[in-house]
Amino acid sequence: MRHEDWVKSELKPLGEQHGFRYTPKEEIRNRLHRLRQLMRKNETEALLVVDKVNIFYLSGTAQDSLLFVPLEGEPILVVRRELERARVESPLNILAGMSSTRELLVAILDYHGRIPKVLGLELDVLPVRDYFRFQQLFQTAEVKDCSTLLRETRRIKSPFEISLMKKAGEIGKEVYLHGAATLKEGLTEIEYGGILEATAKRYGHEGLLRVRSLNYEAYTWHVLSGVTGGIVSQSDSPMGGLGLSPAFPVGASLKIMRAHEPIVVDFGTCYHGYQADETRMFSIGKMDQKYVDAYKACREIHDAVLEDVKPGADCEAIFFKTLELAGRLGYRDSYLGPPGLQTRFIGHGIGLELNEPPFIALGQKYSLEEGMTFAVEPKIVFPAEGAVGLENTVAVTRNGYELLTPVSQEIFEVSQPSDIP
Amino acid sequence: MRHEDWVKSELKPLGEQHGFRYTPKEEIRNRLHRLRQLMRKNETEALLVVDKVNIFYLSGTAQDSLLFVPLEGEPILVVRRELERARVESPLNILAGMSSTRELLVAILDYHGRIPKVLGLELDVLPVRDYFRFQQLFQTAEVKDCSTLLRETRRIKSPFEISLMKKAGEIGKEVYLHGAATLKEGLTEIEYGGILEATAKRYGHEGLLRVRSLNYEAYTWHVLSGVTGGIVSQSDSPMGGLGLSPAFPVGASLKIMRAHEPIVVDFGTCYHGYQADETRMFSIGKMDQKYVDAYKACREIHDAVLEDVKPGADCEAIFFKTLELAGRLGYRDSYLGPPGLQTRFIGHGIGLELNEPPFIALGQKYSLEEGMTFAVEPKIVFPAEGAVGLENTVAVTRNGYELLTPVSQEIFEVSQPSDIP
Repeated sequence: MRHEDWVKSELKPLGEQHGFRYTPKEEIRNRLHRLRQLMRKNETEALLVVDKVNIFYLSGTAQDSLLFVPLEGEPILVVRRELERARVESPLNILAGMSSTRELLVAILDYHGRIPKVLGLELDVLPVRDYFRFQQLFQTAEVKDCSTLLRETRRIKSPFEISLMKKAGEIGKEVYLHGAATLKEGLTEIEYGGILEATAKRYGHEGLLRVRSLNYEAYTWHVLSGVTGGIVSQSDSPMGGLGLSPAFPVGASLKIMRAHEPIVVDFGTCYHGYQADETRMFSIGKMDQKYVDAYKACREIHDAVLEDVKPGADCEAIFFKTLELAGRLGYRDSYLGPPGLQTRFIGHGIGLELNEPPFIALGQKYSLEEGMTFAVEPKIVFPAEGAVGLENTVAVTRNGYELLTPVSQEIFEVSQPSDIP
Repeated sequence: MRHEDWVKSELKPLGEQHGFRYTPKEEIRNRLHRLRQLMRKNETEALLVVDKVNIFYLSGTAQDSLLFVPLEGEPILVVRRELERARVESPLNILAGMSSTRELLVAILDYHGRIPKVLGLELDVLPVRDYFRFQQLFQTAEVKDCSTLLRETRRIKSPFEISLMKKAGEIGKEVYLHGAATLKEGLTEIEYGGILEATAKRYGHEGLLRVRSLNYEAYTWHVLSGVTGGIVSQSDSPMGGLGLSPAFPVGASLKIMRAHEPIVVDFGTCYHGYQADETRMFSIGKMDQKYVDAYKACREIHDAVLEDVKPGADCEAIFFKTLELAGRLGYRDSYLGPPGLQTRFIGHGIGLELNEPPFIALGQKYSLEEGMTFAVEPKIVFPAEGAVGLENTVAVTRNGYELLTPVSQEIFEVSQPSDIP
């Protein structure tokens, strides 16, 4: 059988049989509609979208391609590899093959009829070399940065998107329950991280956590025990951990986990591209009272945030409220990191990427809206000793919020070997 | 204890106790020396390195930072987060803290004394928005693309680097042996991928496989069984697999693995940032003779490549030789992908990233050199049916090559349940 024929007739049912949910046409239409409202306001005649995550959002396929979105008329998906699979996955009407950038120009002229006067490009991620190439190709076009238009469009999630994030949250529940069943003294942090990751994958977790940045890499195996919880490293996070080497100096390490240590498990799950992020505490035997108390404070801060979550609430105000509360509870110097290295956010938007708007953070003076989704994560760090934290992902609803990460928020305390008769 | 004091006195021994190998000063000095020879030839007065992988290569730390490398005088590492940890990890002499881009300029003026006339930037990955920011900051500097200088410098690996890749290859051996011990009918591809990943992590594999590209994502769970081996998707690879969803349409899927199917396991491992890439075949019970024969052809092509590997051998000539051999063996239409979608490389350089020079590929008319490392991977794909392949990572030595991925190249055939009495 020819490959092309097989893809046309068999790939879609094969995917469906193995859990694939294709993005509905209506969903894509709504996203394009919202994007075009912003394009119109921004006087941008067309976008050339190059980033895979944005392309997937607007087309339903993550095949290697470029997406031309005119203000009026049909979007054009120009596919490098693999065109037939893209046709199966995307509800868009116009797809064309491309083996060189010139063919992109040809496709645009064929379907759009002209080179746009004002062309939006994602200058937040587009490499300079590609930018020069596009400048050469579209010499008469004025280039505008369209990163913000795309971020703004993706900021509000549809019920379809939230349903995928809920599924990610359900996978997370399985991960933590299996984590409680398998934790034991003597495992290394990374070994345990591997067990959790394998569990997540078994339930359909996609493994990669996408994040919008040249250098920031997301990963799931953020398991920190005792002293490694006190280490700050590399990322804009209260605690980075030891990691496995100077090349990857964050997350789980080869340190052996011991009884009574506070064990932080910050594990993100991804289902059909949509992520849920959560953190729970584990211990082998009872953890020291200091950490039990600090975790209680994290829960209090977490609950105080959620109390305020509804459309209209100001993001920065929520952040300030948690600062004040953390101080009142006695954790001014350990809240969100060690002194001098404290982070300035208590929540980060999440969806197809781990660092989307809204940010519940210093300087973010805007309101929550229905359909926004974010993770709220109070953490308390004692340098050279250990850390605690809690994290959940929520969606803003009409009157409040919905929790997308349903596993228990109690400390997962497992017996030490010596406790077992 | 203050965090800063703890990092200064305790972090290095804690790392060493948990397997960390810090990059030796001599190693960094040699890399800088080679880079500067190219800078001199290229008339570039200084580089501003922004990409984490290049920064790690030249500084020994992957902390969030920018690296200024003048042709003469000391490099300056300007660190956003976390400065004290970077001091522990990097043998460079000049490190400075930075909370805004302006401080980068101040550090350069303080230590280098002036804004360079010609400044090299990595235009292959630098986002346009950052480029504009740097243009603003270094208004008088002429900007040059230094991507190639850095790629050329990293192209030849030192004995230290090769020793880390060998360690990655040893981890791979454990993965495949454990894979043979755990494979059974009824596991899904992704479940099995998770088991392999957990094994790799237990031995110190870093989980992420780095690759230089805006959109191309590497991952380890490339487990394809039967029909999914025949699917092309997204990446420049002979077969992409079904994947878990349209958002991540490559690699292992929720398909259940069955007896007699050819099972391709293409698994990369990463140790201290350095990768080894390899592929082996598995089956539950005997796989169909068609695949056994095709795999035999892959081994023949693989061995024919290695026969030629030594300094001076032409990369494109090796690729052509394999085309000819594949045709002679009867696989012209299935070698490296289905007709019309066949890839044009039989080997890719590997090291800190999965897509480094050299490329043993169409159009790559240059010679192998001692110290180059690459993966050679003949694959044969039958659309709608299945695929086979073999892959090993090698280092070019003075007279030939050294294999860095030592596990057996025989098919890993495990018993089906019904075979067990």
